[in-house]
Amino acid sequence: MSSLVFPVIYSLCAAMFDGFLVIWTVQVFSVAQVPIEWEEHFVSDKVDPRTQSFLTWESLESVRRNGGHRSLNLTLRKELGLYANVRPCYSLPGYKTRYDNVNLVTIRENTEGEYSGLEHQVVRGVVESLKVITRQASLRVAEYAFHYAKANGRERVSAIHKANIMRKTDGLFLKCCREVAEKYPEITYEEVIIDNCCMMLVKNPSLFDVLVMPNLYGDIISDLCAGLIGGLGLTPSCNIGEGGIALAEAVHGSAPDIAGKNLANPTALLLSSVMMLRHLQLNDKADQIHNAILSTIAEGKYRTVDLGGNSSTSEFIKAVCDHL
Amino acid sequence: MSSLVFPVIYSLCAAMFDGFLVIWTVQVFSVAQVPIEWEEHFVSDKVDPRTQSFLTWESLESVRRNGGHRSLNLTLRKELGLYANVRPCYSLPGYKTRYDNVNLVTIRENTEGEYSGLEHQVVRGVVESLKVITRQASLRVAEYAFHYAKANGRERVSAIHKANIMRKTDGLFLKCCREVAEKYPEITYEEVIIDNCCMMLVKNPSLFDVLVMPNLYGDIISDLCAGLIGGLGLTPSCNIGEGGIALAEAVHGSAPDIAGKNLANPTALLLSSVMMLRHLQLNDKADQIHNAILSTIAEGKYRTVDLGGNSSTSEFIKAVCDHL
Ligand SMILES: CC(C)[C@H](C(=O)O)[C@@H](O)C(=O)O
Ligand SMILES: CC(C)[C@H](C(=O)O)[C@@H](O)C(=O)O
Repeated sequence: MSSLVFPVIYSLCAAMFDGFLVIWTVQVFSVAQVPIEWEEHFVSDKVDPRTQSFLTWESLESVRRNGGHRSLNLTLRKELGLYANVRPCYSLPGYKTRYDNVNLVTIRENTEGEYSGLEHQVVRGVVESLKVITRQASLRVAEYAFHYAKANGRERVSAIHKANIMRKTDGLFLKCCREVAEKYPEITYEEVIIDNCCMMLVKNPSLFDVLVMPNLYGDIISDLCAGLIGGLGLTPSCNIGEGGIALAEAVHGSAPDIAGKNLANPTALLLSSVMMLRHLQLNDKADQIHNAILSTIAEGKYRTVDLGGNSSTSEFIKAVCDHL
Repeated sequence: MSSLVFPVIYSLCAAMFDGFLVIWTVQVFSVAQVPIEWEEHFVSDKVDPRTQSFLTWESLESVRRNGGHRSLNLTLRKELGLYANVRPCYSLPGYKTRYDNVNLVTIRENTEGEYSGLEHQVVRGVVESLKVITRQASLRVAEYAFHYAKANGRERVSAIHKANIMRKTDGLFLKCCREVAEKYPEITYEEVIIDNCCMMLVKNPSLFDVLVMPNLYGDIISDLCAGLIGGLGLTPSCNIGEGGIALAEAVHGSAPDIAGKNLANPTALLLSSVMMLRHLQLNDKADQIHNAILSTIAEGKYRTVDLGGNSSTSEFIKAVCDHL
């Protein structure tokens, strides 16, 4: 195994899963002979008394608990400047839902908006939250969305907003999207109001291709889209930062109730690891693993509990490895 | 026809439809011998040069264009204190979508939240919107939701929120819901995070009964739900205020492209008028008209263009009247 520098912080998933699911990813990677070296880092939601940090990895020591209030993954997204959260969402042949032919990608601004953390009580019984939109962050995520669309042969970018109500914030977001859209005449650009977008998504998701939006709308719409194809157990995500940094993350949370019981669906994490491989430009390996996952699902013999089956995580993983 | 005082401002719909769809509602009401008297009021999005108001109805003269920016229906909701927006959403037998057995009601706080209109530029390229949540408005809408649930034989109220991020605003909203929930021990109360709620709704909408939520979430989720059963052409809405005031409103907008062409689907407006009749406690008439609408749809002979048919509005209305 040759040794590549491994620029992707991957241990977050270990934290989210008590190390459980990541072990399987490492196994699949090893069967697929992916030429990367892993650095393991323990990420915990308990503060390390020695470093006063919940990240024992030195390079992340600066990422500190934000008053104990912010969730681990949010802190990482913000502190590492992971400005775009990319969630491809496609129907998986062999796993039937009410929808087929879903094939879209949500790109969510990941650092500001409704997630500013700025809130206060004005007087007793009156509270305010601030939604912050900046030109810089909006341009950056719009740029990423169009770049992504172009690089992935996609044809349309839809900016999702509520600028008819939030004229200044969502208005600025749209203005930035329009500016970037002009540089990509080959990509169709449209603007869709979020309520209408949700209605269109449940009626006919094939109307959408790449969707770009402020933080909270991305949170909402990406989960909606995940629901269309079967749920968060199946949908990968990758957080993109500046300078080549990326964080692949299964967004389904650590499911403490089943952690360590060999019951979790490893699909979302495996597909996230495929996104990581593409980010590292290990496209052959990515394709190989991706196909093995899709074949396993298409075959339909191994279904984890969340999908109504009774396969264990290890049985599913074994099937994926057999397909490699 | 006996003459009841008619406390419901209904002319908004006329404004939204250039008077077109309301005419049909009046016709259905007359065939059903609904004992109400109509007052017609012209509501326009042009300011009346005489009164400087876009409402020529004297009693609404105080409702003025808010800098020309706010939409007509939003102004009415806010200025009339229409604090709860109620949108029942149920599968219509005979009109097939991907879902059957949807039967839920969204109750949206209608006066504040992300719709505060408070926005400003901090410095160039940095803008903020304020989301305002008050104890008063939250208690009021929560109270309405539980009251509605009880009065309509519903069993569960779900408060939809993102209090894991907006701890203060959505946190206050939840706190108020909890306070009210305690007064209704016979109603099951639960809290669902909005992203998860959207995923659950597209996977299994029958998990929900009554949903109560801040303004923007209500805007988003009610449209999502409308999509599940066929779209805004089919879903009624009613805005509830203090002191018996209510405004029944089809939320699909005025569809200027088809206005006056005898093509619009009158279902949403008719079902909204049924809500109005229930509000006026004319329940027999409400049932009668409701059944006639449902029968017409179940029969399946008359489908307007939005539902893939080629019936005109008047053909559909005639069928409804025939069922009365
Ligand atoms: C867990 C939560 C804070 C997070 C978010 O709101 O972003 C999650 O919903 C997600 O989408 O990754
Ligand atoms: C037209 C628009 C301002 C309105 C809203 O956002 O409330 C609409 O979407 C609705 O749901 O009635």
